[in-house]
Amino acid sequence: MNGAECLIQTLVAAGIDHCLMNPGTSEMQFVAALDRVPGMRAVPCLFEGVCAGAADGYARMTGRPAATLLHLGPGLANALSNLHNARKARSAVVNLVGEHATAHLRCDAPLTADIEGIARPVSGWVRTVRAVEDIGADAAEAVAAAQCPPGQVATLIVPADYSWSPSGPPGTPPVPARRRTPSAEAVREAARRLRAGKAALVMSGSALFGRGLDAAGRIAGATGAPVYASRYAARIQCGGSGFQARRIAYFPEPAEAMLAGLESIVLVEAQPPVSFFGYPGRRSYLAPENCAFHALAGEEEDGAAGLEALAEELGARRTAAQARPPEPEQPSDDAPLSADAIGRIVAVLLPENSIVSDEMVSSAEAVSRRLASAARHDHLPVTGGSIGQGLPVALGAALACPQRKVVALEADGSGLYTPQALWTMAREQLDVVTVIFANRRYAILEIELRRTGATGMGRVAAGVIGIGNPDLDWVKLSEGMGVPASRATTAREFRSQFAAAMAERAPRLIEAVIPR
Amino acid sequence: MNGAECLIQTLVAAGIDHCLMNPGTSEMQFVAALDRVPGMRAVPCLFEGVCAGAADGYARMTGRPAATLLHLGPGLANALSNLHNARKARSAVVNLVGEHATAHLRCDAPLTADIEGIARPVSGWVRTVRAVEDIGADAAEAVAAAQCPPGQVATLIVPADYSWSPSGPPGTPPVPARRRTPSAEAVREAARRLRAGKAALVMSGSALFGRGLDAAGRIAGATGAPVYASRYAARIQCGGSGFQARRIAYFPEPAEAMLAGLESIVLVEAQPPVSFFGYPGRRSYLAPENCAFHALAGEEEDGAAGLEALAEELGARRTAAQARPPEPEQPSDDAPLSADAIGRIVAVLLPENSIVSDEMVSSAEAVSRRLASAARHDHLPVTGGSIGQGLPVALGAALACPQRKVVALEADGSGLYTPQALWTMAREQLDVVTVIFANRRYAILEIELRRTGATGMGRVAAGVIGIGNPDLDWVKLSEGMGVPASRATTAREFRSQFAAAMAERAPRLIEAVIPR
Repeated sequence: MNGAECLIQTLVAAGIDHCLMNPGTSEMQFVAALDRVPGMRAVPCLFEGVCAGAADGYARMTGRPAATLLHLGPGLANALSNLHNARKARSAVVNLVGEHATAHLRCDAPLTADIEGIARPVSGWVRTVRAVEDIGADAAEAVAAAQCPPGQVATLIVPADYSWSPSGPPGTPPVPARRRTPSAEAVREAARRLRAGKAALVMSGSALFGRGLDAAGRIAGATGAPVYASRYAARIQCGGSGFQARRIAYFPEPAEAMLAGLESIVLVEAQPPVSFFGYPGRRSYLAPENCAFHALAGEEEDGAAGLEALAEELGARRTAAQARPPEPEQPSDDAPLSADAIGRIVAVLLPENSIVSDEMVSSAEAVSRRLASAARHDHLPVTGGSIGQGLPVALGAALACPQRKVVALEADGSGLYTPQALWTMAREQLDVVTVIFANRRYAILEIELRRTGATGMGRVAAGVIGIGNPDLDWVKLSEGMGVPASRATTAREFRSQFAAAMAERAPRLIEAVIPR
Repeated sequence: MNGAECLIQTLVAAGIDHCLMNPGTSEMQFVAALDRVPGMRAVPCLFEGVCAGAADGYARMTGRPAATLLHLGPGLANALSNLHNARKARSAVVNLVGEHATAHLRCDAPLTADIEGIARPVSGWVRTVRAVEDIGADAAEAVAAAQCPPGQVATLIVPADYSWSPSGPPGTPPVPARRRTPSAEAVREAARRLRAGKAALVMSGSALFGRGLDAAGRIAGATGAPVYASRYAARIQCGGSGFQARRIAYFPEPAEAMLAGLESIVLVEAQPPVSFFGYPGRRSYLAPENCAFHALAGEEEDGAAGLEALAEELGARRTAAQARPPEPEQPSDDAPLSADAIGRIVAVLLPENSIVSDEMVSSAEAVSRRLASAARHDHLPVTGGSIGQGLPVALGAALACPQRKVVALEADGSGLYTPQALWTMAREQLDVVTVIFANRRYAILEIELRRTGATGMGRVAAGVIGIGNPDLDWVKLSEGMGVPASRATTAREFRSQFAAAMAERAPRLIEAVIPR
């Protein structure tokens, strides 16, 4: 057995069965070994940012890591911004990076770079294999590190000669560390605060879906406390008849208004709410200045278990009644498209149990409001603010949940950071429907430009923010990558195209042209 | 004046007049200030890797830095792999990165990242502005650092609040440091070695074009010493009737054969030749084991001046006679395309004084051989081995040399790392003609897989290396980005399309389909 075979065997034995890869020469032994070691699905990507974003999406939906396979420092560098998002999502990722053969490292060859240095800002754990005998144990430790609650990016750097040399046996699969259950004292204190009133729950992580969210609904029923989702949570269960957490607004003014009057916030796997950017003359923290925080569960703890214990402590049995928003009125057939019109149509047509990857940016508020009345679905927002994750995260979610419909709601500007994801969707025939909100500009920046106190937008600034010179043709871009596509400019066109896409089980893209 | 205005004024006064930008909220004051401070051409890009690669191409052709403008840690991360290439090219780049407002940094907002940590592996100089009063001086120092011979990436990180706050006056433009002329002793020693025989010149940097290359031709004429170009040089003057350096081969066997028998190598702004990758059982250094090295000029020195002094020392007046390769025979009209056929056609049609950005990878050897007989042109190869530079470097070269034809010779796999460069070519109406060598696979990896000792390619490995499932349609991709495109499958089609593109002055793409 050579080092590459040992590495893959160790990963497979530890439950890692997907590898998102964009390999080069130094990873060729790994690629060759895939034919000899069964159990690993190899998913090639044309750009490393797609690998990283897909691994993030996979982890968000399964709670388990996928592996990446990246080529030396530059390959890792291309993955870095989506690894940043994965880091902020607390996603478990086993990030494999090839390195030059050890004897070659002395020579300052073109591709030689400080791989550990590049990896560190996005990784919770970084190791370079130091001897071929260690490769199995190192791989097992990488898996353990990635799964260390709440989950993190674990980067393992593998010199090429250790891949091609005879190795020791595979590493022992790690026993995944369990999340600690919050202490009884933390639960009692949370109950005391909620009973005292003027208190809210702010949740993130595993608290925002499944049994955690159900328990939060009962707590809201018993106490009347509002339940908020962190703006930057990795996965939020929405829609349907179940309880819904309210997502904290993007801009600080409406976010502060949501939290106004609170004297106490109980945090569940969440940090104190903070605005996305700092602005002249505004605080960054969003809760009232005197608001006190109490952590029911830290990020590494089991927030869902904490919420269940809290519901028990409060004797909370009935889920809070929520006025489920009515099915939105449908836009008339010939209405020009808008984010709101798209939201109304998607809300009606989205199938039960879908997954929505959301990188709508300036269209997000208008659409998300409508999706509250859609069928039950999982919402995957941008966690780390680095755009270019929407399509890769959708791809990863589709790999993780092949039975579920995945819908990527994507801004045209953001989609252009990682359009290569479409090719892998076509190659793997994944059931991902992408909707491009084509306003032909970085619309969010028009707002942000004013907010930072800039006194106005001149010709040059408008030219930088507009991306409509020339217009991007997303139908051609998508077809160029192998994904069938169509363009919609009216509500009728969008409805018919989106309905058709929901009825298929194949990749598809709709460019929805919305007014500038 | 606010900090953003001060920053731009300082840069413009220091001669920086191009900014390749993909800004976000934290850079909005910079964008707004572009309308108030004249003299800076703002070139928006849809992806940060395009900004970095274009700044590299600009520096290779002008010897002067362009600025980038990148959004926080993730924006920098997306630029990193092309900054790696710029670092290896010794290109001067003023790399501007926005940072959160200082008060916001405490809050661990989604986009907060270790920007200095991300920058350091690719930068020779990194600084975060620490007070708004410093912004002018810091910007001037960044320019000085970027221009410090031979040139490097200087990263200046600018917190948003310093951009929007009142600043001090602009910084004093730095006096660019001059390259040191090699010592008389270094020149005499080089002469002694060349006279002794079994010696060669290995050159890189500024030695490979203009007066440096001319002097090398005279030295070769006087001594008979072969003159080699480093494989990883940033810019190599080729073709025409002038003297040509011979580029060291990519794979170690032919490279070793070129250098076999040498007892002495005189390095001019170059490192001892090293192979791209290390392979089982092979040395990484390419020169014979007992070969001695002597540096006529270090990378930071003036190699051209050193070569002129050396020619003088040797009394070398006549340029070496080189058998100029004959104009290649043209492929018959209906011949299916191949890299060789394309090389033959381009060699005949390439206009005098063109610039060729080369990221052909597996097609490179076949084409480059033919281009030796083309009209005089500048050849811009991959310096750092990170693919995805070909189109951005072409873009930057076109900004630097608006009167010259730029031809990007690009592999289909490599082109997919930064296809967004096409949009900026269309937006700026740059005279760049892109030829895609579409073999629908990572062909180089088939060779590399065997070279690393892997025992064969199974079904999974072949699937990972093939990128033809589905085939990419580069005509659609290009048109989707706004660049007119066509497909060629025969020599006749390619010849007619390429000739038409040479006659225009506008961006254009040709997908040349070559057999798998």
